[in-house]
Amino acid sequence: MTHPLDPVLYPRTVAIIGASKDPAKRGYRALKTLITDAFDGRIFPINPKDGEILGTRCYPSLDAVPEGIDLAIVCTAAATTPDMVEACGRNGVKGALLLAGGFGEASEAGRLLEERTVAIARRHGVRLIGPNTAGMFTARHSCNAYGRPDIPRGPLALVSNSANVLRSLELEIRFQGHSGISAMLSVGNQADLQFHEYLDCFGDDPDTRAIISYIEGFKDGPAYLAAARRVSPRKPIVVYAVGRTAEGKGAARSHSGSLSADHAVTRGVLRQAGVVLVEQSDHLFPVADALMLFPPMRGCRVAVLSEGGGPISIAAETLAQCGLELATLTPQTQQKIHAIVPNATAIANPVDAGGGTEPRVEYYGSISKLILEDPNIDALLLVGFFGGYVTAPTRYGADVADTEAAIGVELAADMRRLGKPVIVQSHYAHLKTSSLDALRKAGVPYERHVETAVRCLAHAAEQGQMRRRLAEAETTPTQPVRLPAANAIVAAARSEGRDLLEPEARALLAAHGVPMAPSVLMKDAGDAADAVARLGGVPLALKIVSRDVLHKSDVGGVRLDLTGAAAVAEAFDAIVRDVRAHQPDADIAGVLATPMAARGVELIVGVVQDPQYGRVLMVGLGGVFVEAMRDVVFRAVPVSKADAIEMLGEIRAQAMLEGMRGLPAVDRGAIADLLVKVSSLAIAYPELAAIDLNPVVAHLDGYAVVDSRMLLAGA
Amino acid sequence: MTHPLDPVLYPRTVAIIGASKDPAKRGYRALKTLITDAFDGRIFPINPKDGEILGTRCYPSLDAVPEGIDLAIVCTAAATTPDMVEACGRNGVKGALLLAGGFGEASEAGRLLEERTVAIARRHGVRLIGPNTAGMFTARHSCNAYGRPDIPRGPLALVSNSANVLRSLELEIRFQGHSGISAMLSVGNQADLQFHEYLDCFGDDPDTRAIISYIEGFKDGPAYLAAARRVSPRKPIVVYAVGRTAEGKGAARSHSGSLSADHAVTRGVLRQAGVVLVEQSDHLFPVADALMLFPPMRGCRVAVLSEGGGPISIAAETLAQCGLELATLTPQTQQKIHAIVPNATAIANPVDAGGGTEPRVEYYGSISKLILEDPNIDALLLVGFFGGYVTAPTRYGADVADTEAAIGVELAADMRRLGKPVIVQSHYAHLKTSSLDALRKAGVPYERHVETAVRCLAHAAEQGQMRRRLAEAETTPTQPVRLPAANAIVAAARSEGRDLLEPEARALLAAHGVPMAPSVLMKDAGDAADAVARLGGVPLALKIVSRDVLHKSDVGGVRLDLTGAAAVAEAFDAIVRDVRAHQPDADIAGVLATPMAARGVELIVGVVQDPQYGRVLMVGLGGVFVEAMRDVVFRAVPVSKADAIEMLGEIRAQAMLEGMRGLPAVDRGAIADLLVKVSSLAIAYPELAAIDLNPVVAHLDGYAVVDSRMLLAGA
Repeated sequence: MTHPLDPVLYPRTVAIIGASKDPAKRGYRALKTLITDAFDGRIFPINPKDGEILGTRCYPSLDAVPEGIDLAIVCTAAATTPDMVEACGRNGVKGALLLAGGFGEASEAGRLLEERTVAIARRHGVRLIGPNTAGMFTARHSCNAYGRPDIPRGPLALVSNSANVLRSLELEIRFQGHSGISAMLSVGNQADLQFHEYLDCFGDDPDTRAIISYIEGFKDGPAYLAAARRVSPRKPIVVYAVGRTAEGKGAARSHSGSLSADHAVTRGVLRQAGVVLVEQSDHLFPVADALMLFPPMRGCRVAVLSEGGGPISIAAETLAQCGLELATLTPQTQQKIHAIVPNATAIANPVDAGGGTEPRVEYYGSISKLILEDPNIDALLLVGFFGGYVTAPTRYGADVADTEAAIGVELAADMRRLGKPVIVQSHYAHLKTSSLDALRKAGVPYERHVETAVRCLAHAAEQGQMRRRLAEAETTPTQPVRLPAANAIVAAARSEGRDLLEPEARALLAAHGVPMAPSVLMKDAGDAADAVARLGGVPLALKIVSRDVLHKSDVGGVRLDLTGAAAVAEAFDAIVRDVRAHQPDADIAGVLATPMAARGVELIVGVVQDPQYGRVLMVGLGGVFVEAMRDVVFRAVPVSKADAIEMLGEIRAQAMLEGMRGLPAVDRGAIADLLVKVSSLAIAYPELAAIDLNPVVAHLDGYAVVDSRMLLAGA
Repeated sequence: MTHPLDPVLYPRTVAIIGASKDPAKRGYRALKTLITDAFDGRIFPINPKDGEILGTRCYPSLDAVPEGIDLAIVCTAAATTPDMVEACGRNGVKGALLLAGGFGEASEAGRLLEERTVAIARRHGVRLIGPNTAGMFTARHSCNAYGRPDIPRGPLALVSNSANVLRSLELEIRFQGHSGISAMLSVGNQADLQFHEYLDCFGDDPDTRAIISYIEGFKDGPAYLAAARRVSPRKPIVVYAVGRTAEGKGAARSHSGSLSADHAVTRGVLRQAGVVLVEQSDHLFPVADALMLFPPMRGCRVAVLSEGGGPISIAAETLAQCGLELATLTPQTQQKIHAIVPNATAIANPVDAGGGTEPRVEYYGSISKLILEDPNIDALLLVGFFGGYVTAPTRYGADVADTEAAIGVELAADMRRLGKPVIVQSHYAHLKTSSLDALRKAGVPYERHVETAVRCLAHAAEQGQMRRRLAEAETTPTQPVRLPAANAIVAAARSEGRDLLEPEARALLAAHGVPMAPSVLMKDAGDAADAVARLGGVPLALKIVSRDVLHKSDVGGVRLDLTGAAAVAEAFDAIVRDVRAHQPDADIAGVLATPMAARGVELIVGVVQDPQYGRVLMVGLGGVFVEAMRDVVFRAVPVSKADAIEMLGEIRAQAMLEGMRGLPAVDRGAIADLLVKVSSLAIAYPELAAIDLNPVVAHLDGYAVVDSRMLLAGA
């Protein structure tokens, strides 16, 4: 099973273009680290002047190399790059790692240079890493083209927009001392190879168990989402994405030339694709490390075990803040814990094994096992002194080191046997005691701080949920169809170069199964009696219908709560008069009469074009919530029913959905159906650039689409 | 200058009651650590059986000790405590540290034992630390009564509800290696000495530069606020308070028996008192350490300097999220930076000194100086490789170690000279390089992670703001007065055992300078014409006035938007009829007619009784915001104008205050005046248990109090 990029990312023959004898130069370090890190392949330094460097024979040019080259490391200046890539192509080189900066990220001239380089590479089928990359390391054949020696080997692949963040992660992994790296590279300008291709390749790498990325923006967002959707069910993908604030976005743009999308969109679509998005960069490594070790987490019910109160309180709070649940242990489990520690301060969860007597490390083993066997619990968090008993043998006994280490090994075995994540917060983490070493070697992660440990569990729960949803979504594919009647509506508007009129949008929605209230398009005031009769005599809303009116209320184009034909006729005239006053030339198709919607929770549902991810579906609370709080949630289309349910769960003002101020609770199933239908519509009619249902009034049982707009691309 | 608690917390003569030869016992460790940590005073172990322990002569009882004792460390079991404290009192011992658990935190019997102990101590004037404390260490005379040896000495005082959190902090300080401890103690059950007394004493300690606390609840919240207000202008008080979620609160309650208040209240009142409240426990130490080193921060404008993009983007985002500002450097500064690094990727702020060429550590010194001298900047954050150049002398030159260390010293000098905080985020922090060592020794803190460093700056900015506000508030004291007319209203209601009627509440507000719309109390429908005339013919609102009606709308007691005498008369009758239908026996005082308020932003203003902090003033956005989002802010009364302005700034939906959806912007000055007046009212009339102005409709110019309720204590 080989991946098309294997020869480029796991090369066996490497040429170093611009190899140098000067230790301060990258052309020296490139060679040096290949040698020191024991590259399992053959190296061909290219240097027309020197016969050999670091004991390795040099070649005057690529053309002189007697073998086929998998990867050329290009250390020469930016201006030479097109020629070097040309030489690569001429000699059948499979990939080129372009270290120089000064391309698209620097200037317009650089951008043109980059374009020229890519064109040459494409012509020859040479794949490019970079330019403007800090290099690459892959463990499979010990290819250290990263320029810093002695990379710790292990199961983590790191792919980053930033060389500095990459270096920071590498140092963090070194300091932790238990994990290591299967692959690391900074993507540079992604002139050719992009995030999604690296993700795809490392997703297939048997040595890689988790993938960490720092991301400032995608050149091909949909391709990344597709790759993530493929990889995330098998391996954790842990991402920090810039763009949460305008400031960060600005800084990122000046740095790498990437586009940072609205973070709410990024958050939504990455989650949809199964990516674990961390909100602090310092969580990247610990979360990936923990997820790699954890069995899949089945729910969000966590037990906390300690021998003292403070850290338990912090853990309990942080768990709740992260959406995890401190579920109560079964009476049977509580009874058994009581039998072990009769003085325990608390046994229901959290379990506080402290209680006046000296703590005993043995408790941790026996109580942990009981907790993990409890059906009410999905994961276990130990907080406090575990891992530190070993530091006080005079207090806890000479054999405490062995006991504590053995408990760590048991914890790992129980974690795997019962399929429930276990993580330890230890005050002694920085001391890296022998007990903690044994614990981690056995497979249980430990952290210094409660907050980090809880965050690991929260992301494990999130990952479990995402994977279940992805598995579910696969069994219910969306097959969007274009219906002839609806197709005709879109075609007509298109031929007239205009957006859809509201009656057309309503017809399109109705044709695709969205329940719509009846409506009447009035042509003059004389239609009032007929409209009132046909709509059943209920109070009506009237709205202008005109291809030229964008904001109906602003031009007096709306009248509400009209009872009886006289009032309706009067409103018709008033609307037409007001609109004419504002826009004398407006092409007025009529006035739409609809029954007033029953009172309910106002939602906004829409489809918009995102610059990075293509069309995305949006749902949020209408009114002040969307304007003052931006309480909206996004997903890429198509969205599954499970996606839609998840979207509703991410609206912040959940209280509004549960029914308050005399309003009914929202029928989440019905709204989720609507979201799926709107998503299908967007897929079926790619010419719809934007869909805007605002408001959708949600009721206890269903909803009413009160206003709908559909914009055509290019209209 | 001595503090009354000095002899207890900085004793020169210590007795150990229950001293033991058994190394596993606390009575042994108490003695041992006093000796190993070189107690600067005399030790008197009390043990009737042993002649000496660890080379120190024992005394059979406290009565046999020939000297006056400052502090007795009581290591015996809980049941013996009253007798031991009695013996302390008999012998003039000034304070007793009660290590045993099994008191109020454990059981009702324990609570009674605790009460008895306190009574004995009070009778004799013995101050108690604990019971249920893990001990105490104070550096002044090297009094290690903490039971663990070799506490690192330094400027931090730690006072904690939890012994485990205390230990965690101690280990964190040890690991960091640059700071140390002036005092540490776990407060235990606070049977006698409480948080505020320790704070007060350590606030006066010349060796203490910052105070860190983990707090689960106060027994006397107002006393703590008073102490904090006194200490915080001089020394940072950095607190993590449990109670942000019901879960944490529950866990805390089972642990220490403390009461955790609503966290929004805690956040508000602590901030008002100048306390720096961290939201993650792992920020306690780094934030205190940084604030102790920083000069006062004058604003919130931060510059970021690095040699590469990724960490800059993370920093920029995190700064914005924490409310800090990435202000643009002056053109002059930018020019000078450009002269130093012509290739710099960015020079306006953030400054990215990277730009294709090899980074040079010298840049940091010269550019940092320029940035700190810029008038647009209040603080500087370095991110990335600084502190790590020293690790690559072959790359950066043999003298890079000296250069980098010298720059660190310069940074510190510039920080102090220009009075602007500087903090370094270094990828090499865990390596504790010699450069970072020099930097920290010179007085500049460094952190491993961007998020932590930014949080330190955010809290520095917050502290600066709090201190300026506290200084300002001192010059504008509130002198609440009781007015005779208003007094009579309150007295009348009180004598009738009822809450204030709305006309009374309105009169009270008006008497104290709150502008109130005119109103007419109608006695029957015949008053309609008069009411309409007196209120100027504008549309009116009518509301039932009855001591027996709590929720006026629920019983049909409100009618709105009434024009003309006929409508008003009809509404009067309808109200009385509806209220009678709901509450036949209601004592109806009349119906209040007021002009309808102009459209504006609905606020809620109130005073409520908090179980920990006494009466607190509340302001928030009304309507869905308070119900669905709990968007409310609290302060303890009295509230200064500056407090009030700050409160408005903490409302989350700021967009609503700025004017949106056609609503006017809120007149913050006018609302702040209202808050101060309501606060004064609460102070002047302590018998008002609750005040509820809901809604207050805020306009571009002033506000209207639409509905007001005042509840009397015990009514």
